[in-house]
Amino acid sequence: MNEHNHIVQSYNAEQQRLTDEIMRMGEMAASQLEAALDVVERRDDKAAARIVANDDAIDALEKEISHDVMKLALRGPLATDLRIILAAVRIASDIERIGDYAANVAKRTQTLNLTPPLPQALGLRALGTLALRQVRDAMVAYRDLDAAAALQVRDRDAELDAQYTALFRELLTYMMEDAHSITPCTHLLFMAKNLERIGDHATNIAENTWFRVNGDAPLPPRDKRDGTIDPP
Amino acid sequence: MNEHNHIVQSYNAEQQRLTDEIMRMGEMAASQLEAALDVVERRDDKAAARIVANDDAIDALEKEISHDVMKLALRGPLATDLRIILAAVRIASDIERIGDYAANVAKRTQTLNLTPPLPQALGLRALGTLALRQVRDAMVAYRDLDAAAALQVRDRDAELDAQYTALFRELLTYMMEDAHSITPCTHLLFMAKNLERIGDHATNIAENTWFRVNGDAPLPPRDKRDGTIDPP
Repeated sequence: MNEHNHIVQSYNAEQQRLTDEIMRMGEMAASQLEAALDVVERRDDKAAARIVANDDAIDALEKEISHDVMKLALRGPLATDLRIILAAVRIASDIERIGDYAANVAKRTQTLNLTPPLPQALGLRALGTLALRQVRDAMVAYRDLDAAAALQVRDRDAELDAQYTALFRELLTYMMEDAHSITPCTHLLFMAKNLERIGDHATNIAENTWFRVNGDAPLPPRDKRDGTIDPP
Repeated sequence: MNEHNHIVQSYNAEQQRLTDEIMRMGEMAASQLEAALDVVERRDDKAAARIVANDDAIDALEKEISHDVMKLALRGPLATDLRIILAAVRIASDIERIGDYAANVAKRTQTLNLTPPLPQALGLRALGTLALRQVRDAMVAYRDLDAAAALQVRDRDAELDAQYTALFRELLTYMMEDAHSITPCTHLLFMAKNLERIGDHATNIAENTWFRVNGDAPLPPRDKRDGTIDPP
């Protein structure tokens, strides 16, 4: 084997390691989100406490992987490709945020369980299921360097935003009808917002996958809903 | 001048450029926050619209600087020092988030101005002033590589959390007393949460400054309040 082949092999191996590390991190965040959504539905205080207790450990592990990703990107033969590094580092940071939001959903469940169940918790579940799907699909698009799949994830974010807006309005009317529901509904509002934000981070991952594949080529136009402002 | 001196000079010049870029980015986010807080107080729809309109341009500029930071870190003589790179990239990402939260505060002002003024907007101003101070102090600590000042910023985050919690409780009681206040108070809740999150990002900047100066040496213990869960 000549030297050129050696370099290509080593480059490919490092790239695979980088992708594996990022996928591991992504699956960790997705599992946390999945567990948090289960806990909301089952109103299981013990399981919520477990997720919360795991949060610090997972956080540390995520930071370690993130550090690894950076080292892999800088030290190895990949260091010449700024695009791979930028995409990997940004995606790792988005995954970290997704994990944080998932843990926050679990934490708020514990407070929510101090009061009787609210029917709107079902709407939260639907929102969470869609957010989880967005995260997993974004990770798969990154793994497969599939720019078309990444664009689909980005487009589907509008659906998540619409569901969030509907739930937000529903919660507001409920709060107006029954003052006792204000405190628990406020927690549901924040939980819904967390899930909507998770969707935004999945979109970021999708956009960085596009960038990883196509470089700074302009993204196709998007039916951009403004996800940051809520209905009055 | 010998070759060694040349290398040292070039290293120092690149480090200065990196610090300058990050400081420029930080001041941009701090100014946005300052403008957003003014707009809340003055209930100035036009000024809010201006901040919102500027948001995309500033976002793009931030991404450009962030990209620059990465290139500076990877291409120049700094590339050998993983600690400088890690700190710079992480701090740039925290500053980006601070800018986003500041723009969101401005956006919500426009919805808030559809209803009569609420006394709690004053509490928001106090919270925002503290958050702004945290951001600016964190940036100065980074510029000066002052680990002691960074720890002070981190410690002061507990104060911000306590103020946020007090405002949160106040808003809840207000909502319970007057159903008409629920919609505007909900916006104030989210705005307060944004400011509390800005404080968390200032803390991240402080912790990365510590890391930049001291490496992986353990941080001194902190009176860690849990900023992620709100009072029931």
